[in-house]
Amino acid sequence: MSKKKKQQKAPPKRTSKRSKKMGKAPGSVIYMGNREGAKSSVHVLEYNENQIEELDLDVYQEKEYNKIIALKDSPSISWIDVIGISDEALIENLGKSFDLNMLSIEDAVNTNQRPKVDEYDNYIFSVFNMLYLDHNNELVQEHVAIILMENTVLVLQELKDDVFDGVYNRLKNKMGRIRARGADYLFFALLDAIIDSYFVVLENLNAKIEILEDEVYEHPRPDHGKNILELKKEVLKIRRWIFPVKEMVSKLIDSEHPLITKDTKLFLRDAMDHSTEINETLQVYREMSMSLMDMYISNISNKMNEVMKVLTIMASIFIPITFIAGVYGMNFDYMPELQFKYGYFYVWGLMLLVFVGLLVFFKRKRWL
Amino acid sequence: MSKKKKQQKAPPKRTSKRSKKMGKAPGSVIYMGNREGAKSSVHVLEYNENQIEELDLDVYQEKEYNKIIALKDSPSISWIDVIGISDEALIENLGKSFDLNMLSIEDAVNTNQRPKVDEYDNYIFSVFNMLYLDHNNELVQEHVAIILMENTVLVLQELKDDVFDGVYNRLKNKMGRIRARGADYLFFALLDAIIDSYFVVLENLNAKIEILEDEVYEHPRPDHGKNILELKKEVLKIRRWIFPVKEMVSKLIDSEHPLITKDTKLFLRDAMDHSTEINETLQVYREMSMSLMDMYISNISNKMNEVMKVLTIMASIFIPITFIAGVYGMNFDYMPELQFKYGYFYVWGLMLLVFVGLLVFFKRKRWL
Amino acid sequence: MSKKKKQQKAPPKRTSKRSKKMGKAPGSVIYMGNREGAKSSVHVLEYNENQIEELDLDVYQEKEYNKIIALKDSPSISWIDVIGISDEALIENLGKSFDLNMLSIEDAVNTNQRPKVDEYDNYIFSVFNMLYLDHNNELVQEHVAIILMENTVLVLQELKDDVFDGVYNRLKNKMGRIRARGADYLFFALLDAIIDSYFVVLENLNAKIEILEDEVYEHPRPDHGKNILELKKEVLKIRRWIFPVKEMVSKLIDSEHPLITKDTKLFLRDAMDHSTEINETLQVYREMSMSLMDMYISNISNKMNEVMKVLTIMASIFIPITFIAGVYGMNFDYMPELQFKYGYFYVWGLMLLVFVGLLVFFKRKRWL
Amino acid sequence: MSKKKKQQKAPPKRTSKRSKKMGKAPGSVIYMGNREGAKSSVHVLEYNENQIEELDLDVYQEKEYNKIIALKDSPSISWIDVIGISDEALIENLGKSFDLNMLSIEDAVNTNQRPKVDEYDNYIFSVFNMLYLDHNNELVQEHVAIILMENTVLVLQELKDDVFDGVYNRLKNKMGRIRARGADYLFFALLDAIIDSYFVVLENLNAKIEILEDEVYEHPRPDHGKNILELKKEVLKIRRWIFPVKEMVSKLIDSEHPLITKDTKLFLRDAMDHSTEINETLQVYREMSMSLMDMYISNISNKMNEVMKVLTIMASIFIPITFIAGVYGMNFDYMPELQFKYGYFYVWGLMLLVFVGLLVFFKRKRWL
Amino acid sequence: MSKKKKQQKAPPKRTSKRSKKMGKAPGSVIYMGNREGAKSSVHVLEYNENQIEELDLDVYQEKEYNKIIALKDSPSISWIDVIGISDEALIENLGKSFDLNMLSIEDAVNTNQRPKVDEYDNYIFSVFNMLYLDHNNELVQEHVAIILMENTVLVLQELKDDVFDGVYNRLKNKMGRIRARGADYLFFALLDAIIDSYFVVLENLNAKIEILEDEVYEHPRPDHGKNILELKKEVLKIRRWIFPVKEMVSKLIDSEHPLITKDTKLFLRDAMDHSTEINETLQVYREMSMSLMDMYISNISNKMNEVMKVLTIMASIFIPITFIAGVYGMNFDYMPELQFKYGYFYVWGLMLLVFVGLLVFFKRKRWL
Repeated sequence: MSKKKKQQKAPPKRTSKRSKKMGKAPGSVIYMGNREGAKSSVHVLEYNENQIEELDLDVYQEKEYNKIIALKDSPSISWIDVIGISDEALIENLGKSFDLNMLSIEDAVNTNQRPKVDEYDNYIFSVFNMLYLDHNNELVQEHVAIILMENTVLVLQELKDDVFDGVYNRLKNKMGRIRARGADYLFFALLDAIIDSYFVVLENLNAKIEILEDEVYEHPRPDHGKNILELKKEVLKIRRWIFPVKEMVSKLIDSEHPLITKDTKLFLRDAMDHSTEINETLQVYREMSMSLMDMYISNISNKMNEVMKVLTIMASIFIPITFIAGVYGMNFDYMPELQFKYGYFYVWGLMLLVFVGLLVFFKRKRWL
Repeated sequence: MSKKKKQQKAPPKRTSKRSKKMGKAPGSVIYMGNREGAKSSVHVLEYNENQIEELDLDVYQEKEYNKIIALKDSPSISWIDVIGISDEALIENLGKSFDLNMLSIEDAVNTNQRPKVDEYDNYIFSVFNMLYLDHNNELVQEHVAIILMENTVLVLQELKDDVFDGVYNRLKNKMGRIRARGADYLFFALLDAIIDSYFVVLENLNAKIEILEDEVYEHPRPDHGKNILELKKEVLKIRRWIFPVKEMVSKLIDSEHPLITKDTKLFLRDAMDHSTEINETLQVYREMSMSLMDMYISNISNKMNEVMKVLTIMASIFIPITFIAGVYGMNFDYMPELQFKYGYFYVWGLMLLVFVGLLVFFKRKRWL
Repeated sequence: MSKKKKQQKAPPKRTSKRSKKMGKAPGSVIYMGNREGAKSSVHVLEYNENQIEELDLDVYQEKEYNKIIALKDSPSISWIDVIGISDEALIENLGKSFDLNMLSIEDAVNTNQRPKVDEYDNYIFSVFNMLYLDHNNELVQEHVAIILMENTVLVLQELKDDVFDGVYNRLKNKMGRIRARGADYLFFALLDAIIDSYFVVLENLNAKIEILEDEVYEHPRPDHGKNILELKKEVLKIRRWIFPVKEMVSKLIDSEHPLITKDTKLFLRDAMDHSTEINETLQVYREMSMSLMDMYISNISNKMNEVMKVLTIMASIFIPITFIAGVYGMNFDYMPELQFKYGYFYVWGLMLLVFVGLLVFFKRKRWL
Repeated sequence: MSKKKKQQKAPPKRTSKRSKKMGKAPGSVIYMGNREGAKSSVHVLEYNENQIEELDLDVYQEKEYNKIIALKDSPSISWIDVIGISDEALIENLGKSFDLNMLSIEDAVNTNQRPKVDEYDNYIFSVFNMLYLDHNNELVQEHVAIILMENTVLVLQELKDDVFDGVYNRLKNKMGRIRARGADYLFFALLDAIIDSYFVVLENLNAKIEILEDEVYEHPRPDHGKNILELKKEVLKIRRWIFPVKEMVSKLIDSEHPLITKDTKLFLRDAMDHSTEINETLQVYREMSMSLMDMYISNISNKMNEVMKVLTIMASIFIPITFIAGVYGMNFDYMPELQFKYGYFYVWGLMLLVFVGLLVFFKRKRWL
Repeated sequence: MSKKKKQQKAPPKRTSKRSKKMGKAPGSVIYMGNREGAKSSVHVLEYNENQIEELDLDVYQEKEYNKIIALKDSPSISWIDVIGISDEALIENLGKSFDLNMLSIEDAVNTNQRPKVDEYDNYIFSVFNMLYLDHNNELVQEHVAIILMENTVLVLQELKDDVFDGVYNRLKNKMGRIRARGADYLFFALLDAIIDSYFVVLENLNAKIEILEDEVYEHPRPDHGKNILELKKEVLKIRRWIFPVKEMVSKLIDSEHPLITKDTKLFLRDAMDHSTEINETLQVYREMSMSLMDMYISNISNKMNEVMKVLTIMASIFIPITFIAGVYGMNFDYMPELQFKYGYFYVWGLMLLVFVGLLVFFKRKRWL
């Protein structure tokens, strides 16, 4: 089973991910993400109520590979975490060893796959978008497939992340009753961890919206239009990643698949509440990003108004008195006012009168 | 049962509330609100048709604590009101003593919990947002859990508020048939009191909208854009708090849980009407806040229009006559008009003609 | 049964209507409208296919009151019309005498009640908003409760209006088969009269929209923004009053209550069509009021455009030639043009050239 | 049966059509359209697979009237086309002769009736809006009722139009299998002809939208706002006329009425597709008319921008150099530059420099 | 069977495609597209698990025509691809030979047909819009009908395109299990190929949106309004073409037609996911094109703001100092400043002061 070779043969083609799938049969195992080239590693937690064993296995060594496969027949519960799914041949083999349908294996590595849950006779297959913030507070989206089998939960994910750390700790430290419950509870616990992490992403999004809101209000800049549009696109993007989860959980609650116990459904009902809340929150963010654009446009108009007022006041005040000055700059032979002794001062008086009169006029209009 | 100690041990951590839950098992009892530190107090009304007893019990004393727990087995109906839910350990103990599922106990102190109703074999669990105005007319949102058990209604709330005062008075003064009915009617009465209080909040919101509407119309100011946005956000926020209630009541009406009698369903139908009305009202407010933005933008444009008209009239009238003055300010050796005896007056006449002509023009355009 | 006394005891409190209900038990009979103080009067039509009797009864006299109550056991059909529902004690007594549920009595006088239909074992309770135009073409909204019992239709309404005149005339003059049909047909006939009156209100609304549309198009004024908003609010208000009726009729059609015969359901299907049409019309009006705002805003912009064009043309034409005049107003010792014999005329020529050139330019731009 | 007399008695009242119905019983036969006064004429096609007979009957002569009524009992299939439905008494008589319910007869002449299909034991009643373009390409809306009975299709329509010409030709010329099929196929064929004619109306609407789009883009005029609003109203109007048809066809497909055979349902499925397509198209037109308003508003702003640029360029270039000229028009006794030999030319140079500098500045800003 | 003749007889009429159908019976075979005049050609793949045969048949020769018809009774699976469907008579004959319902044959050549799936006893009929980009990256829409019969898939399409190339290759090269599966899998594979090609079209659309977005942001031009509108129309158009596919696949999954095996339904579930994703993506594009218009309008306003600022700054700075120059250009006999020795320089100083003061003022306002 020389996985390595196969991997090396794969040419470093770099065209549109989608087009790789064109003309292929459904069930073709093609990794669609951009975290390629890394070897897969497997991390296993095998436990029952009384003991827990942690293993790091080299999936490229036949012996250890077989050990992984053997876990599915063990009476204790196994959480098999495959990290790195770009080695298509390996994943395909693994999938077949676990008796997965080819369509499931395809979806497990298809990073474009919409979140979904599919029931098969011997397992329940689900795909999620795991979302979290990295050290630079940048949003990371990671494709993760969670497959619930009897006594085994197989997780296929792109990166070694820490969204599942809470579940790991609870298992290791025997917190709560997690070790006493079945594989379906572990499945739920992972799903719950993913949903919980969405809240962090939403909080981050909320912070972004509020900052932008303040900026737009205080000092609207021409590039805020672009920023608001980006924000809106981010909300739409996250919505597409997260939205189907509610429907998935609802499907699991209504499911009559023997792998999901009645007890776990009680917990799923809780997850359902959270998904509903998340979807409503996203809806609110969508509306708020739209309102933001309205406020931005109204603020631009307000700024323009202010500009126009300054122009109008300056022009309206000086244009009439400049006209007066112009009149007495005319060179007619006979202009009686010019000979008046205090003519010059009278004119200054007139101009002052006009000036003050217009100031009062604009004051009344509340433009000053 | 030294609750106090446990409470003191809790470190005064102050990070994002949400992140406290990350990685915790579902059913972890974590208070998510910001009304921390206060001790819980318990207020009990135990009644039947003929008599009523009122008790204030110190939940931190074992004897009184046991008295509370004993109430659930008493044949009279008890309304147990726990005020202050930030003492997580206490609430967890209480919940266990009342045979509540861990998920319910978690939701009872999770102030972010979306309103919901969950049925369990031995009780019905519900969570609401209680909304009312404080003395400064500021909106207060308070998390409240109401749990209907046989003969007992357990209420867990954050503050000692007065939304339930009406129910209290009716019980104390034996108004109507409330004392003759079962615990499910008490449950309904509390729910109804919460829904009634929403109307007050909506009236307040309506007043805000109307005031803003008048202001925007009379004297639009640049900060009105922000105000309208704030209003919209408030409507969205209240909507999220209130909206699920209709669905909850509908669920209770359709429920076949033995704790809810047919008689009480008749009353719930009434509560259903009110929830529907509230949701429709919120929808109307949402539309009105949107229209307000439209009117605000149109008013800014109108103001700009007015500014532009002033500028245009001033400039258009004085620019041509200033030109005329400029012409006769030229220093050509030979400019015949300059020597005309009444040249100066002729020019004044010309300028007046232009002036009046333009005035008439603008009058015709209805700009004056 | 000294109703009058009770009424007098009621203190003349005048706070928010809603708050009167706060803390009261459901089923508390509280009049919420603002047509208070008037005595109730009762008008009765008792008929069968062959004869009809019309009575005006003084409900405050015990004998006549009892006569009203006795009607429910009479084999002929009675239409009992109670006009004036602000006397809460009277209505409560009446309701009890007719074996109505307290919730129904409450809703009958609760003028804020959303239109609804409730089925009880012995009667069908419904609440409507009756809408019509008064002599000044002002919209009047009146709360009306119609209760269908066996052989009796009890109507509780605020004012002596004329929406039911058609039904009255048909009964009096034995037009159609109305007298030969049962109480459920009378119930339908009243419902149908209410729905018919909505069409008049909608026509009036349509006229308003069209007038405003013309005005906005011909001479947009700054207060049109406010007018459009008012219109929108009126559409929203009427929508809330009318919208639930379709659902109510649909509920009656699907109902299996023995009081509604199959024959009447055929007529209700007709009422259903009308409600659907009304709701669609309201939807159209809502869209039109929104479009109106768009047109209004575009018209303001158009006006501004026109203003700007005038300014631009005036300024652009006179500024260059004023500059030319300014040049020859300079006082340099040596300016050769000044000594040219026809210098002055040459400059006039130049200025004319610039003037005409710019006119042509603006003509080409279609600004003139 | 002197129909004519009755018709003459009807006073030429001309109030709102709707108010004619106020206070009338349901089932009152009142013509609501504005194509009054014409006599009704009846055109009959009686056919079976082998032969076809065409008749023009004078419905006002008792003998011919009876002949029409007799058709319903004939074994061949009859298409009875009543043209002109303003003679209410005649239509009422006809309806009764064909055993129609009064509600159906009312709807047959109620030109405001929303399209609908009603099933009765002995017939299926349907009302449509027939839409087509007249010789001036103006949209004509005509109310048409089609009633399917056993072996008979009764059509009541306002005008002698040509939407049914195709069906007529197929019957006359025995094209396809139309003559071999039952009355329900004829019913479908007429329905299909009506739906087909909608496509022509939609094409016309599309043409209007595209023309307006081009005009708005090329030369936006102030009245385009009004035009777009008119267009939107037309789309809304047509939508109300056409939209219910899909639901009607769907109801016919799901119907279990014995008059509709399984074969015809296959054809109705086809009509269903067309209705769906029409409704989607109308939805697209609605969105496009809204986008058009957006484009119109953006174009007005663009025009304004252009105007402002011209003004700004003209003013910004000439104002500084006019200032320079103004400076050297001052009359100070001691202004050294004035005595410079080439002072005048230096100033010209300076002014040219400023002129060119500003031109370059505006060029850089891409305003020129 | 002289197809050619018939085709030649057809007059080269060129009116609106739609109107060709007016008045025709349903089931009239009329080609509605604009790819007329070409002869039809037939390409056949006949295969079973072990062997595959490829044939190009001349459908205008009776012998080869009969060979095609004979395929439907062959036990191996046949993919019959008819290219060119404008020869209405030929298609009608072919359809009849394959026992297709006339309605299906009509829809097969009706290029305006909305995508749909219809079940008949002996076959399943479906119509799609095949979308792909040609060599110039222009979107090509092609009408294609796919008919699933026992052991045969009949495809009728307008052009010899390459969307099905992948399926062809998999069949020829025996990739995957496609040759081992039934005709229903081939049907699914073709459907899947069509859906896959939609993704390419969507990617192209996305690229267009992003380019336009950048352009609008960087250098908004007046024609961008038109471009955005065109984009929106394209999204609406593609949406109409693609949207019904999800519903079609869902119908196939729920179908109980014996021609679709349970295995294939598993694959259809996969196609369902893709359709859902496509529809969601289109929805996102729709929202984005709307946001784009908002950004465009806000950018126009920003540009205008900038223009206004330049004008205001230039005018506000020079108007006051030009006034000062004007004052000292007056010709009064007695103007003391004129005789001051340094009067001229004082005035320059004053003008400089005003100039700098205004610059500071505008700097403070952040306009510079």
